[in-house]
Amino acid sequence: MPVAEDELTLTFTALADPTRRAILRRLAEGDATVNELAEPFALTQQAVSKHLKVLERAGLISRLRVASSRPCHLEVDSLGPAVDWITEQRQVWQQRHDRLERYLTTLGADDTPESS
Amino acid sequence: MPVAEDELTLTFTALADPTRRAILRRLAEGDATVNELAEPFALTQQAVSKHLKVLERAGLISRLRVASSRPCHLEVDSLGPAVDWITEQRQVWQQRHDRLERYLTTLGADDTPESS
Repeated sequence: MPVAEDELTLTFTALADPTRRAILRRLAEGDATVNELAEPFALTQQAVSKHLKVLERAGLISRLRVASSRPCHLEVDSLGPAVDWITEQRQVWQQRHDRLERYLTTLGADDTPESS
Repeated sequence: MPVAEDELTLTFTALADPTRRAILRRLAEGDATVNELAEPFALTQQAVSKHLKVLERAGLISRLRVASSRPCHLEVDSLGPAVDWITEQRQVWQQRHDRLERYLTTLGADDTPESS
C-alpha cells in the first residue's frame, strides 16, 4: 500500500536527532515518564517535551492516559513505512550498482578513457 | 562497527524531504546533471543545488568530475548505517511488544484495571 510522503518526512525528521534516537532506544526498554526520560539525558523537562512532541507527531510514540505523568509508549508498527522505503531504496541502488559492475567487466579493465 | 551519531543525523535529515527522496529515486535510474534533475521536478537549478548539497553532505550522492556539468551519482553503500539502525530498532521494538503480549496473555484477558 502506498505511504503518504508526509508520513515518511515526519518519521525521518523525528529520527534526524541523536537525542530523539536515544529516547526511542530508552523507550524500547519500557514505557517512561517525561521525568524518567529527562534525568539520564541531563535535559530539562521542557527540552524532553519538545522532542516527545516531534516523536508523537510522527506517530513513533504515544502518551498513555493511565496517570497524570502520562508515560510515553513506543508505537511498535510505526517504523514500518520508513523501514520499507529505506530497504527498498538500498536494494534498488545495489541492483543498479551490480548491473553497472557487470557491464564494466564486459568492457575490460584496461578500457579507461585515460589510457586511450 | 559503531556508526557516528552525526552520520545518522545527516542521513535522516537528508531523507526527511519529499523532493530529496524523489531525487534519490531518479538517481537510482542513472546519473543526472543538475539540469536534468531540475526539469521533471519543476524546480530552479538553485533549488536543486541546495537539495544536492544536503544529499552530498550526508554522503548519499557524489558529484562526478567528468564534465563541467558534474553529474550526480548515488553512493550505493551510504544508506547502510541508516538501514542497520532502523531495522535493528524495529526488531528490538517488535521483540519487546511480543514479550508484553505473551505476559498479558498469561494474566488473562479479563484482568483489566477497570474490571476490578
